[in-house]
Amino acid sequence: MSANTFGELFRVTTFGESHGPALGAIIDGCPPGLAIDEAFIQAELDRRKPGANRYTTPRREADEVKILSGVFEGKTTGTPIGLVIENTDQRSKDYSDIKDLFRPGHADYTYAHKYGFRDYRGGGRSSARETAMRVAAGAIAKQLLAQMGITVRAAMTQMGAIHAEQYDWTQVYENPFFFPDPARLDDLDALIRQLKKEGDSIGARIRVEAIGVPAGLGEPVFDRLDADLAKALMSINAVKAVSIGDGFAVVEQRGSEHRDEMTPTGFSSNHAGGVLGGISSGQTVVAEIALKPTSSIKKPGQTIDVHGQAQTISTHGRHDPCVGIRAVPIAEAMMALVLIDHILRQRAQNGAVSHQFPILK
Amino acid sequence: MSANTFGELFRVTTFGESHGPALGAIIDGCPPGLAIDEAFIQAELDRRKPGANRYTTPRREADEVKILSGVFEGKTTGTPIGLVIENTDQRSKDYSDIKDLFRPGHADYTYAHKYGFRDYRGGGRSSARETAMRVAAGAIAKQLLAQMGITVRAAMTQMGAIHAEQYDWTQVYENPFFFPDPARLDDLDALIRQLKKEGDSIGARIRVEAIGVPAGLGEPVFDRLDADLAKALMSINAVKAVSIGDGFAVVEQRGSEHRDEMTPTGFSSNHAGGVLGGISSGQTVVAEIALKPTSSIKKPGQTIDVHGQAQTISTHGRHDPCVGIRAVPIAEAMMALVLIDHILRQRAQNGAVSHQFPILK
Amino acid sequence: MSANTFGELFRVTTFGESHGPALGAIIDGCPPGLAIDEAFIQAELDRRKPGANRYTTPRREADEVKILSGVFEGKTTGTPIGLVIENTDQRSKDYSDIKDLFRPGHADYTYAHKYGFRDYRGGGRSSARETAMRVAAGAIAKQLLAQMGITVRAAMTQMGAIHAEQYDWTQVYENPFFFPDPARLDDLDALIRQLKKEGDSIGARIRVEAIGVPAGLGEPVFDRLDADLAKALMSINAVKAVSIGDGFAVVEQRGSEHRDEMTPTGFSSNHAGGVLGGISSGQTVVAEIALKPTSSIKKPGQTIDVHGQAQTISTHGRHDPCVGIRAVPIAEAMMALVLIDHILRQRAQNGAVSHQFPILK
Amino acid sequence: MSANTFGELFRVTTFGESHGPALGAIIDGCPPGLAIDEAFIQAELDRRKPGANRYTTPRREADEVKILSGVFEGKTTGTPIGLVIENTDQRSKDYSDIKDLFRPGHADYTYAHKYGFRDYRGGGRSSARETAMRVAAGAIAKQLLAQMGITVRAAMTQMGAIHAEQYDWTQVYENPFFFPDPARLDDLDALIRQLKKEGDSIGARIRVEAIGVPAGLGEPVFDRLDADLAKALMSINAVKAVSIGDGFAVVEQRGSEHRDEMTPTGFSSNHAGGVLGGISSGQTVVAEIALKPTSSIKKPGQTIDVHGQAQTISTHGRHDPCVGIRAVPIAEAMMALVLIDHILRQRAQNGAVSHQFPILK
Repeated sequence: MSANTFGELFRVTTFGESHGPALGAIIDGCPPGLAIDEAFIQAELDRRKPGANRYTTPRREADEVKILSGVFEGKTTGTPIGLVIENTDQRSKDYSDIKDLFRPGHADYTYAHKYGFRDYRGGGRSSARETAMRVAAGAIAKQLLAQMGITVRAAMTQMGAIHAEQYDWTQVYENPFFFPDPARLDDLDALIRQLKKEGDSIGARIRVEAIGVPAGLGEPVFDRLDADLAKALMSINAVKAVSIGDGFAVVEQRGSEHRDEMTPTGFSSNHAGGVLGGISSGQTVVAEIALKPTSSIKKPGQTIDVHGQAQTISTHGRHDPCVGIRAVPIAEAMMALVLIDHILRQRAQNGAVSHQFPILK
Repeated sequence: MSANTFGELFRVTTFGESHGPALGAIIDGCPPGLAIDEAFIQAELDRRKPGANRYTTPRREADEVKILSGVFEGKTTGTPIGLVIENTDQRSKDYSDIKDLFRPGHADYTYAHKYGFRDYRGGGRSSARETAMRVAAGAIAKQLLAQMGITVRAAMTQMGAIHAEQYDWTQVYENPFFFPDPARLDDLDALIRQLKKEGDSIGARIRVEAIGVPAGLGEPVFDRLDADLAKALMSINAVKAVSIGDGFAVVEQRGSEHRDEMTPTGFSSNHAGGVLGGISSGQTVVAEIALKPTSSIKKPGQTIDVHGQAQTISTHGRHDPCVGIRAVPIAEAMMALVLIDHILRQRAQNGAVSHQFPILK
Repeated sequence: MSANTFGELFRVTTFGESHGPALGAIIDGCPPGLAIDEAFIQAELDRRKPGANRYTTPRREADEVKILSGVFEGKTTGTPIGLVIENTDQRSKDYSDIKDLFRPGHADYTYAHKYGFRDYRGGGRSSARETAMRVAAGAIAKQLLAQMGITVRAAMTQMGAIHAEQYDWTQVYENPFFFPDPARLDDLDALIRQLKKEGDSIGARIRVEAIGVPAGLGEPVFDRLDADLAKALMSINAVKAVSIGDGFAVVEQRGSEHRDEMTPTGFSSNHAGGVLGGISSGQTVVAEIALKPTSSIKKPGQTIDVHGQAQTISTHGRHDPCVGIRAVPIAEAMMALVLIDHILRQRAQNGAVSHQFPILK
Repeated sequence: MSANTFGELFRVTTFGESHGPALGAIIDGCPPGLAIDEAFIQAELDRRKPGANRYTTPRREADEVKILSGVFEGKTTGTPIGLVIENTDQRSKDYSDIKDLFRPGHADYTYAHKYGFRDYRGGGRSSARETAMRVAAGAIAKQLLAQMGITVRAAMTQMGAIHAEQYDWTQVYENPFFFPDPARLDDLDALIRQLKKEGDSIGARIRVEAIGVPAGLGEPVFDRLDADLAKALMSINAVKAVSIGDGFAVVEQRGSEHRDEMTPTGFSSNHAGGVLGGISSGQTVVAEIALKPTSSIKKPGQTIDVHGQAQTISTHGRHDPCVGIRAVPIAEAMMALVLIDHILRQRAQNGAVSHQFPILK
């Protein structure tokens, strides 16, 4: 219980179900004096929302965020920022046909056991709809980070067997897949069409980076920067794995290969992904996540109903063939929230990172 | 700062540097009335400690744990349990030759920037020595879990390119690699000898499982069971990746393949790794972690000193060619701590998981 | 920063300024399955709100609370409960004449120094307006407590020099002063009229009790029940003192007088106020608080402006001659929040208080 | 449960029972680079310990504190500071005669119900012995505060009916009562002798102040400076009331009297006790606490045993006639811990209190 708050000093608390009247968040701990760009918050929400392009679900979500407190004359006041988004399209009836069925691969079975209660309205709190508030809060975190010269960016680097072979970040915002390799866009398009025809779905890999992070962020031994990133990213719906730097590839690496050597002009490589001993090194922070294919598909599957009887299920709701696409802005938001929280925590220590030692890039 | 506490209700706070007088921990939140088996705690510590076998560092660590409070007449009282292990072998002189050098791939560079301070005594707080207290605390968590029929186990399933092809858990405690495939022990032995000759090191993969976990553990939307496991496991020294269930393999899976179908007799598979929507499903919880090769190797490498000058470094201390081996009991301990914390959190809700819905295995 | 959350397991996070668009709260940790009586929540809010009677400020606050999440088909779901109250009457202009003046005895001077920022709109976040959400959250806590047979009640027992000489709790809701001694109502009425004529204000004492609290609530050594009550009650605007049981009178008591002797039929007295060693004893929990007279009065006073220049101030806004009157339901709400939080914390321990020892009343 | 940690950023976690092998604490969050004066820590402990003078219990407690981590070459490193004090005098036999009796006014009855367990060894965790670690941690906090020009001081200002009529702080350390009015020392002496003869005890009032506190400390709306002080001070054994500034006297004050007027040369009074709206004003922070008379007295009283049978009890252990005397250094320690925690929290906001507004003293 009471697990809907993220962060220690920059705290985001959220509420709201996919088919309730509204979603909301309280951001507690935002420093005063930050000029808030509401248009930017809305733009971030628009990137996440379904129906943004023909590859994601056509469901309409207005996702218009209202700021209810904490901002006066355009600037943050240091008091909690209240945010609300009304749910304008609730269509519970879409789900009435599976009212008594547990959906394989979904949270409804586990929620039923945890709470002794069943909200059949499209997942209720377990719906990805909840992540809208993470993106809104992340947009405010990004504005704080921008003031410090820190940029967070993410891209979908793999969908099914289709890998990005080049990383052209300028392309990521230019295509509906947030994909950095334009040469593979047709393949992605073809795969999505095929999946729709088959009534199936596919997984995805997302890479998220933070550029300009100063050395010294992270709180050993438990609240390490990489540990908090792992939690933040794993808490996103459908994520099944998180890696930092070379990730699982380190299993086959030698120490002489993995260690990033240091020279007066900088690190010679970044196998570590910008984190050493749980603390940022000043290099780019690099993480990857794996998103499972959604289980809400037309293809029939075996399941049980609330009475334990065998049933066949086929989901006819409006769903993404690849939920990974929409997770790109969510991953950016979570990394932004982790970074700003650790910046505030580091400030508490002495207001600034020490500069008595050489700084490498 | 103040990041040396793990857990919400079963809280473990640790202190101690590799070369200070002692390590310690306070376990706050252990329910009263638990019979404590001190021999078991010591046995767990012995599994972790270096010198336990010829494949790990010959450094001697007595690791004798003393219980200073919280236990009366052999049982926990509900008050905080104080634990201390004295450091009997401190040999700071081993490190004097690298007193002014930043070790590539180590935490000393980032610690220096974070704290504006340098403890050159073998890593100080960033040393894996710290994990001894995690194992001691985990041993108490395991005793609580055992009362509930929950077992945690881990094994090293890959070292370098050598994979376990079979999983015989009865073999894990029978060999110094905690390896479940006895057919590959000679290969592992040969690789370690080769690495020692080359003065190099290698990474490892560890699989950790929890059996008998009831459905309903995990606190959406941020303190999901998988998210807390990701943080707990990523907080272990040298870990660079964490996965749940099929992990990164889900990127190439179809929804029809990944979703674990449900039948009246149980789940037909466990691609999810026992967690759905961040809540345990009642199936075995399965996680994997990747550990990087240690950077403390004899093989010379480029680095800088505290003045920013180029230097060559070669570590002659006593180090493991594969730190992954020792991480096996640590991974078990962290999973045990996460599980007991979530069991107490679930108890706060209603003392028990609801049973009004069918329970699958 | 990030200090707008109260409670460990039953967590209430609030936002909103006196003159912003809305106030709100998120209740995270409310157990599922509680039938919510919205009319009761509204009734509690109506007790607190100004203009409820002619002795308090005539300012109109609709205080209509909306539930935005966490309740489905009339019952809590275990997910966070989102609450919002729109501010319908904001009249910032009332305050424009003191835009540049620091009000003696008010928070605007300290807020200005803390946040480097000035919200001159009637105190903004520091206004008692914020407590509306405490009362709404407390109303839900009271519904949970009622299920357990626990009742919280409060009364104003002193205003200026006028003491209650008898405690008739049935009278408290029958008069606008929440005063338990009907014989003194005329005196109270006269004092309020006199204060209005003089443009002055007066302090008050409130007594708050919890009946039916089981033995065993409270978490030594820091989160004792009395310590958490002290924090909760001192966090109410204008409160300057908190006492438990006999309070400051214990300074002159002997141990033989103060200790509540125990007999097989029960405690012989309740000097302790229902708390021993920071844990509830099963007796009625008794606390008292002192509320200062509001500093917003017509009577002119010396102050400075934002430029440090000497000024005379006279507040012509709509204010209570005695803010203590309105604090009665707020005190009840805070005690209810502390109790439900400690009940959930005790549940985490073993789901129930032990009954192997004799229970006294 | 898990309630043995105090503070948000400067976190103190303690363990230890009165008759176990040792007491200990972990201070997590102490900034690096602080020169630690161990002799000062010991001197603070000596002030608290019994047997320090003939007016308190003759029980011997060596109270020699050992620093086990977090300090290197005389300075803090930013890593957790481990402290331990061994219990050298445990004499459990003193308590054997009351092994089965609940002591009126003591925690053993409530502990028994909370934990379903009875530690008859002189109160175990509920003993004032636990406060030794608070004083040790407070001594480190005081050294940090001293660097910022902040001083914390306390005095016993009333014992029974004997009030201090003058406040000569230079006298407080010169007499065994920590009493600021030397003219009343003979009266205090006589009262103690009389109480010993009668086998009875008496309550006390303590005043604790912080001088040099900057404006801007405190985190509305829940973690106000006064609210956190109330919790910290109420968490001290035997405390039954906490007040800030004029405390309960405000009930009879007028607003025109209470509000501290402001002039270009400073505040004209300090009725508020240095806190406005939960935030420090820059004036001296003033709090008072009431300590009950100990219930461990020779004078016989009625009680019950663990079987619920009526019994008579007379405590023959070694106890203070006035526990308030020893609480003076404990009250200083708790105020110091609250202040340093709020200073670190304020730093997280912007590293410094804003100075764009006039600062009064």
